[in-house]
Amino acid sequence: MAPTKNIFQGLTGHEYAQVTTYLHQQKKLNLTAVVNSTSWDNVIVTLDLLQPNKTDALAYLEGRGPAPARYARATLQFNSQLQPYIQEYMVGPLPVKKGLTRYEELNYIFTSGRGRINVYNADGDAIAAFNLKVGSEIQDITKLLLNGTATGADDDKLLIAGSDPLTHSGDRIYQWNEFYFAHTGEFFSETILPTSLQFKVDLTGRDPSKWKVVGWYYDGHYWPTTAAFRKGVETLTRRPGPNVDGSWTSTDQQGDKLPRDHLYPPISIQPEGPRFGVDREQNYIEWMDFSFFISNQKETGLQLHDIRYKGERIIYEFGLQEALAHYASQDPLHASSAYLDSSYGIGTSQWNLVDGFDCPSHATYLNTTFYISETTHVHPNSLCLFEYDTGYPIQRHLTSNHVSASKNIVFTIRSVSTVGNYDYLFEYSFHYDGSIAVTVRASGYIQGSFWTGDGDYGFHIHDNLSGSMHDHVINFKLDLDIKGRKNSLLKTEFVPITQVYPWSDGQPINTMKVNRSYITSEDDSKITWAKNGVAAYAVVNKDKLNSFGEAPGYHIFPNSGSTAHLTVQSSSALGQSANWANHNLYALQHHDTEPKSAYAFNSHDLHHPAVNFDEFFNGESLDQEDIVL
Amino acid sequence: MAPTKNIFQGLTGHEYAQVTTYLHQQKKLNLTAVVNSTSWDNVIVTLDLLQPNKTDALAYLEGRGPAPARYARATLQFNSQLQPYIQEYMVGPLPVKKGLTRYEELNYIFTSGRGRINVYNADGDAIAAFNLKVGSEIQDITKLLLNGTATGADDDKLLIAGSDPLTHSGDRIYQWNEFYFAHTGEFFSETILPTSLQFKVDLTGRDPSKWKVVGWYYDGHYWPTTAAFRKGVETLTRRPGPNVDGSWTSTDQQGDKLPRDHLYPPISIQPEGPRFGVDREQNYIEWMDFSFFISNQKETGLQLHDIRYKGERIIYEFGLQEALAHYASQDPLHASSAYLDSSYGIGTSQWNLVDGFDCPSHATYLNTTFYISETTHVHPNSLCLFEYDTGYPIQRHLTSNHVSASKNIVFTIRSVSTVGNYDYLFEYSFHYDGSIAVTVRASGYIQGSFWTGDGDYGFHIHDNLSGSMHDHVINFKLDLDIKGRKNSLLKTEFVPITQVYPWSDGQPINTMKVNRSYITSEDDSKITWAKNGVAAYAVVNKDKLNSFGEAPGYHIFPNSGSTAHLTVQSSSALGQSANWANHNLYALQHHDTEPKSAYAFNSHDLHHPAVNFDEFFNGESLDQEDIVL
Ligand SMILES: [Cu+2]
Ligand SMILES: [Cu+2]
Repeated sequence: MAPTKNIFQGLTGHEYAQVTTYLHQQKKLNLTAVVNSTSWDNVIVTLDLLQPNKTDALAYLEGRGPAPARYARATLQFNSQLQPYIQEYMVGPLPVKKGLTRYEELNYIFTSGRGRINVYNADGDAIAAFNLKVGSEIQDITKLLLNGTATGADDDKLLIAGSDPLTHSGDRIYQWNEFYFAHTGEFFSETILPTSLQFKVDLTGRDPSKWKVVGWYYDGHYWPTTAAFRKGVETLTRRPGPNVDGSWTSTDQQGDKLPRDHLYPPISIQPEGPRFGVDREQNYIEWMDFSFFISNQKETGLQLHDIRYKGERIIYEFGLQEALAHYASQDPLHASSAYLDSSYGIGTSQWNLVDGFDCPSHATYLNTTFYISETTHVHPNSLCLFEYDTGYPIQRHLTSNHVSASKNIVFTIRSVSTVGNYDYLFEYSFHYDGSIAVTVRASGYIQGSFWTGDGDYGFHIHDNLSGSMHDHVINFKLDLDIKGRKNSLLKTEFVPITQVYPWSDGQPINTMKVNRSYITSEDDSKITWAKNGVAAYAVVNKDKLNSFGEAPGYHIFPNSGSTAHLTVQSSSALGQSANWANHNLYALQHHDTEPKSAYAFNSHDLHHPAVNFDEFFNGESLDQEDIVL
Repeated sequence: MAPTKNIFQGLTGHEYAQVTTYLHQQKKLNLTAVVNSTSWDNVIVTLDLLQPNKTDALAYLEGRGPAPARYARATLQFNSQLQPYIQEYMVGPLPVKKGLTRYEELNYIFTSGRGRINVYNADGDAIAAFNLKVGSEIQDITKLLLNGTATGADDDKLLIAGSDPLTHSGDRIYQWNEFYFAHTGEFFSETILPTSLQFKVDLTGRDPSKWKVVGWYYDGHYWPTTAAFRKGVETLTRRPGPNVDGSWTSTDQQGDKLPRDHLYPPISIQPEGPRFGVDREQNYIEWMDFSFFISNQKETGLQLHDIRYKGERIIYEFGLQEALAHYASQDPLHASSAYLDSSYGIGTSQWNLVDGFDCPSHATYLNTTFYISETTHVHPNSLCLFEYDTGYPIQRHLTSNHVSASKNIVFTIRSVSTVGNYDYLFEYSFHYDGSIAVTVRASGYIQGSFWTGDGDYGFHIHDNLSGSMHDHVINFKLDLDIKGRKNSLLKTEFVPITQVYPWSDGQPINTMKVNRSYITSEDDSKITWAKNGVAAYAVVNKDKLNSFGEAPGYHIFPNSGSTAHLTVQSSSALGQSANWANHNLYALQHHDTEPKSAYAFNSHDLHHPAVNFDEFFNGESLDQEDIVL
């Protein structure tokens, strides 16, 4: 059914296996199979398709050229030296052929000039052991304050978890760790069981014997040494105890039954089967006048490609780039927590969906395939596609002799990524009126912090628990192509005016008008939503005016009341690793060298990220250019 | 099923009839039956229930007192004098009993001190005749420019419609009128068939022989007299012609059939029947832990009363106050158009709903009853109530050994008001998480203006048609009572900070915190939504802290991305008649003398409205007082 091959689709199991074998054959890389590796071995972190360059892809999609050669993007971690690092490689063309297939560093898509980033927590097992040793040394105190221990023993009631990202200060690397109460039931509820007790470790270098504890925190108090901490604990006037697991952490239904909830609620049925087409081989989808390809990328999950309306391309690419959760707290661990979730694999976290709950029971499900620890994993039923009646008309009008009404049927493709405590529901929906929406919802457990008595960082929501204020900022790339690649960014603004009109008898009239202007340079293209929604933005094609003289295009606007950029300014926790989070909308000139606003492993070295989004802005023209939002 | 009588419910047919008869018996009022009336007769404009005072109502609802005496609110228009006016009356107690039932002016709920407003268009028939005479006098020109006439003859292709509200300037009253192309098909499409040809009439006084045309406008040109206009027409270089009706104005399906649209789309069914209770006698509704009464008011439609959660009142009153559509244009008629739709009767415009389109086919329908022209009218199936599955979970979490997911079933009560060209869909929805949302959607025909070649007031959307920029501002009253009447207004604000912490080694950390404060006075209670959504507002009860020390309450936030206040500042078109439109949110101390932010007939005399919302603000305390939003 697909008109062409899906050139965006991830590697096949066969390709994964071939590339893995090929890489292991390269003596220079000195790779060890992941299953046999120690923290001093070089390993394959991941493989994925290197997405084709747009120019090559368009030539193929428009029948002007061959399918672009397929390349794997290989993320390798080099642990065999004192300073471990990740380096990206490209391997291809695929399939692997002797003499033809090569590997080389993948550098051209990174603003730093290299697809490389230093890694400072390569020795994860040693770090965990170090922390448990600390837990053992102060087990008298954890028993006293928290009624438990974290020593590595089977009867530990506590566990230790560290901050993400690490803190870089000068040439030192630090991590704050917190004791958490371990869950006791069947629910992994640790993120709402903080204890407040935290210690800071200087993790610099790869010799664990040189690591040391350089600070303690508990319930608002700070001590620079373990000795001071031991002494200080004796003088504490407040000993609130830990957050303790219990039925309150259950995600199952609790409490009084709701009236009439024993009856089955309304449910959507699909009386004549699906009204959309799916080419499962090519991951190609058609609904009404829309068609598109999908891919699933390990780090960023579901992506949409070559979205067409009545056969005409309107979007080249639409997909998640990164999801940030930035916390603030009076305690050091949560104050330095700023998760860049693509590093955890938003794609590989797309698990099976719950039929009838995550998606309507008449949904069509697709599998996704990812490469994890050198093996191909299939996640069954991890995407769903369905039409749905929103339950209100998209149009209706009544007169004394006629009524017209149109159902608002929406087509949706949805995935849910469970990244630790959080479940992100991502969906793209297509509407009869031509609009396309992306929606993100979050569920699961919050990451609470310990309640220390003031409300500067959240509400007091359980015995010793703070709701823990945080910002979610989710970044999507949208590459619209309106009647060709060359487009412009139209700004329309409602402005109050006072004006004398020819007909107003010389009287000034207080009214409003719409100002139209074009944002013509990247110097002006970092946009925050205007107050009261008075400014609207549209990507239009000025060279293809319609018969009324208006430029055709797509209007971009926030679909919900909670679309926000990051509150924190120049975040200490983030460094330069997520500069896309500072505004609501950006427009840039497309370059094959700038395919992604984020890099999943930026957080390893947040002051020296491989992709610094700010560096995309260099004053280039946005006047009838290939604009990317 | 209702625990008490619905004391908010409108008058019964019997009460309407009784009060009508009673009023006609009052010689002093000198009323004429509407059917027999001329423009010089006093008439009953409308009757409705005078809503009880909150103090009396609460006494009854809480079992501390009797049901408040029922009073009718009678809106009478006195046309028998040179300056016609509307005066509001209260008639009661009901039922009408000789010697007991009285009528008196209803003044205490109006900021002007009187429930009275001057009326300047009482002579509607004479105005229409005057305008047709103008149309006849220039029929040579309308034929030339517009290919039609508006003379009152059967073969008129044009009609004439005037601005709302009238323009008041000094002691003169003006109206701009525009020739419209009359619809030719079955669709009342006039509002997208403007011709641009407009004339201004000085309507001052009640003697039509003294009315006169004092200005002409066409396609950007203005002439102060008809003579000048006649002359000017000859020199026009642009004669764009009218907007002509055709298939493009149809609201029925047109164009190519969509692929697979011959199949029936998904549809919601209710396998075990409704899971809510409706007391049709008392208009009382129960869903899950929520219960409430409804009323339907002639001017403002559906209103909710005494909303309880688990039996505890959380909202005393929730309902629409007014809907404003404010236009701007280079032409005088649309520049002075600012519709206050309650004057057209948003309640009486609640017509029958289209089953399966306006509401799911398993919805429960209710009738509404209104008093129109001294008769009781039943609008069948004009409210619908239904549960609906939003199609995404309200909660879900997945772990390696457990998944929990909860359907997001929402209970909705909906009405659709067709006010001329516009269909407003109003709904209140209740959610499992305790949240309550009000949503307004608009459909129908836009009111376009004539396209005169520049885009300062809209986009060019058809041959001679401008999309006509306008603001919709819709005002609701929400009277929350959180654990009693005395509440406070909490503001929580996310602010970026740079701070040195005890644990930060003297380093300043760029992070954020939440500022909590209370808005304690009406002086500070005109609120616009903060940029980036950083400020949140909640009505809370500071005197009933929960076990964690937090004040219980309801958070108020915009549910969509398009919740706006009026762009225009100090609107010339509106005068003082809709000052509630200038901000997003207001908090006020409740007074029985301030039950409504708007008055349906304010637009008759917009510089001297009976209710001027600004006058509600007099610096009163909002610190543990009965707060109304
Ligand atoms: Cu969150
Ligand atoms: Cu509108």
